[in-house]
Amino acid sequence: MSALADDPGVPDLESRVQDEHHQALKLWLRWLSCTTRIEDAIRKRLASEFGTTLPRFDLMAQLERHPEGLTMRELSKRLMVTGGNVTGITDQLEAEGLVVRAPHPTDRRAFSVRLTPAGRKFFKRMATTHEAWVVELFAGWTPQQKAAMHEQLAVLKQHLARQGSTE
Amino acid sequence: MSALADDPGVPDLESRVQDEHHQALKLWLRWLSCTTRIEDAIRKRLASEFGTTLPRFDLMAQLERHPEGLTMRELSKRLMVTGGNVTGITDQLEAEGLVVRAPHPTDRRAFSVRLTPAGRKFFKRMATTHEAWVVELFAGWTPQQKAAMHEQLAVLKQHLARQGSTE
Repeated sequence: MSALADDPGVPDLESRVQDEHHQALKLWLRWLSCTTRIEDAIRKRLASEFGTTLPRFDLMAQLERHPEGLTMRELSKRLMVTGGNVTGITDQLEAEGLVVRAPHPTDRRAFSVRLTPAGRKFFKRMATTHEAWVVELFAGWTPQQKAAMHEQLAVLKQHLARQGSTE
Repeated sequence: MSALADDPGVPDLESRVQDEHHQALKLWLRWLSCTTRIEDAIRKRLASEFGTTLPRFDLMAQLERHPEGLTMRELSKRLMVTGGNVTGITDQLEAEGLVVRAPHPTDRRAFSVRLTPAGRKFFKRMATTHEAWVVELFAGWTPQQKAAMHEQLAVLKQHLARQGSTE
């Protein structure tokens, strides 16, 4: 028996594994709780200031990044928030003149969705305000802490991409 | 004019503010992207291994933490993921014998929802597997990185709580 194994300050393998399990779960729950609070704040403000929803904002943000247009399928894949119905939202935004469906240049069976000039103008106005909210919501961290978090998330994202590819 | 203001290595106030704005937004987008990947992985696995959904799992997890029962209103407030309809999910789980509605002890107009013994047993089985998935998904970080993240999220959560209370 080694001296280490008898030292009550050194946890045995099983309790160490247990601790690491709980650590990951506790981390994920705290993460989710922060995510929910941030999303709720953004949802409330989008509703009160722009009469819009987070899935609508998200969909317009994806289109803004892709001026050449996106198919419904590409849009679905790119959305960052859940709970939105891509077809339903596109229908609404089209009725309001903010997006337009056009025949897809290469796939006859598909449509390509784009922002209209009015949609682009409205999105830019929302995006500026949205960015200010995000700055405020993350103001609990110093620029150094934000930079460290950004780096650490890159490591996690790579790990998740590897996991996804072996599923 | 100070020597500092002329030094091209020192950004002026406006560009520094711009950078910090973009930093917060880039951080939030990377965060959302990681959250979506983790949630998607958990959703897929809950569906294939347990034939259940993330909102159902989430609702059962809240009930497991509150054996005394929760009202629908309390449940709605506690759910960590969006996109679930509390009444609809409770109806389904009740039909499957996993939860039960009972008259609320103090509020005559309310019901209190609890896990049944079968519900508790099923949840415990899912929770063990779910925890192993979370460990695997966060395995891109060392225990030290996870601990640092856990601490840093606490700082953010406090900031968000302060923001919420002044809204």
